[in-house]
Amino acid sequence: MGGDETMSPGTLSLVGVGPGAPDLITLRAARLIAAARLVAYPTTEKGAALARDIAAPHLAPNAEHLPIVIPMSPARAPAQAAYDAAAATLGARLAAGDDAVFLCEGDPLFYGSAMYLLARLGRAAKVEIVPGVTSLTAAAAAAARPLAARNEILKILPAPLPDATLRAELAGAPAAAIIKIGRHFDRIRALLHDTGHAASALVIEHATTPRQHVAPLAALPAGERPYFSTILCYRGAEAWR
Amino acid sequence: MGGDETMSPGTLSLVGVGPGAPDLITLRAARLIAAARLVAYPTTEKGAALARDIAAPHLAPNAEHLPIVIPMSPARAPAQAAYDAAAATLGARLAAGDDAVFLCEGDPLFYGSAMYLLARLGRAAKVEIVPGVTSLTAAAAAAARPLAARNEILKILPAPLPDATLRAELAGAPAAAIIKIGRHFDRIRALLHDTGHAASALVIEHATTPRQHVAPLAALPAGERPYFSTILCYRGAEAWR
Repeated sequence: MGGDETMSPGTLSLVGVGPGAPDLITLRAARLIAAARLVAYPTTEKGAALARDIAAPHLAPNAEHLPIVIPMSPARAPAQAAYDAAAATLGARLAAGDDAVFLCEGDPLFYGSAMYLLARLGRAAKVEIVPGVTSLTAAAAAAARPLAARNEILKILPAPLPDATLRAELAGAPAAAIIKIGRHFDRIRALLHDTGHAASALVIEHATTPRQHVAPLAALPAGERPYFSTILCYRGAEAWR
Repeated sequence: MGGDETMSPGTLSLVGVGPGAPDLITLRAARLIAAARLVAYPTTEKGAALARDIAAPHLAPNAEHLPIVIPMSPARAPAQAAYDAAAATLGARLAAGDDAVFLCEGDPLFYGSAMYLLARLGRAAKVEIVPGVTSLTAAAAAAARPLAARNEILKILPAPLPDATLRAELAGAPAAAIIKIGRHFDRIRALLHDTGHAASALVIEHATTPRQHVAPLAALPAGERPYFSTILCYRGAEAWR
């Protein structure tokens, strides 16, 4: 804890730790993580903390850990309350002069949990943001498939969206990445058949981790897939040829 | 050069070097670059080679350089011919047992030049792809602005696309990133006024480099902007609050 009379507020570093492989974090992230005295990260109610696990090889053994339990619920209020509480705790430590690092899977501002802390603390505290490798480009690397080329549009489509929304977006889109697959797999597969994307679609799970799995959409059985699955769609002539 | 009788084909590593700052490359990229004996990268006809410049602090002093001159032309054929020639040269070296690293700004498969080598050499050679931090998330970090939250769609829209296409895509999109701005700036700004995105749009140039510049869309004078500019658009209530 900072405690001297002349202290200035600390810096909150929102650090992307990449998609899973510990050596796919950036040099800047590794340096900040190694130097961190106070390390915060999201965890599930069961204690799973992917961002902490990715960063683990770089963490100082004497770092203070501040796990932030985020309730997994489709309702927004419980998670918002968790971020409110975490922001209050972190805000007090920053005001007392401590620096803090918040670890975030992938990139902090690409569907990342860090944005909720940024919204709560961005005006009060000094914030540094360290971009990271996203699960999107990790999936493309795992599949050895370009996301989009030249002047093509690329759409990032969360699977929980309604069928009609996804259908309309896919209609005019050769290139799309469908994220947050989980229990929506069967519904998304049926939809991709209708839009003409199914034949060339690839499913990438746990990209860059030891559990990485890449399969053609047609090769997978019906049923739930991991939440951290991405389906890469590319319909038509490959513009990178 | 590999030259013994029992050699096996070499590996081509397509390595994303991130958006500009040398410490925003990954640990894996830094390790591969430092070990590389043969390093290829795109250059302009004037010899500018951004990917090589980003990787420079990590390159071995005795590495052999293979610059690939890519003609800057809206026509496709000249660039395709350049990649054909580069693939032939690299393919011969790989077949002779040499490993090679191809450096790519940002990520290799997110609008990256590496995809053109992958298309030409992916079946003949052993290829490893190392994902990198994209200019997209670097721009978000520079602007301290989330790209998209929760179940929002994120659209990546190349600025050279026709007005009607961009207008239709933006109509239903709260969150979008417009890339490859360059000489399209005035046209894109007028269009974002019409679609309701202009008020909150931010222009990010040369993110993470010493030349980084972030400005509200309205604050910039008319005229050309750098090619490596991104406009981040977010219309409506911020879903990360």
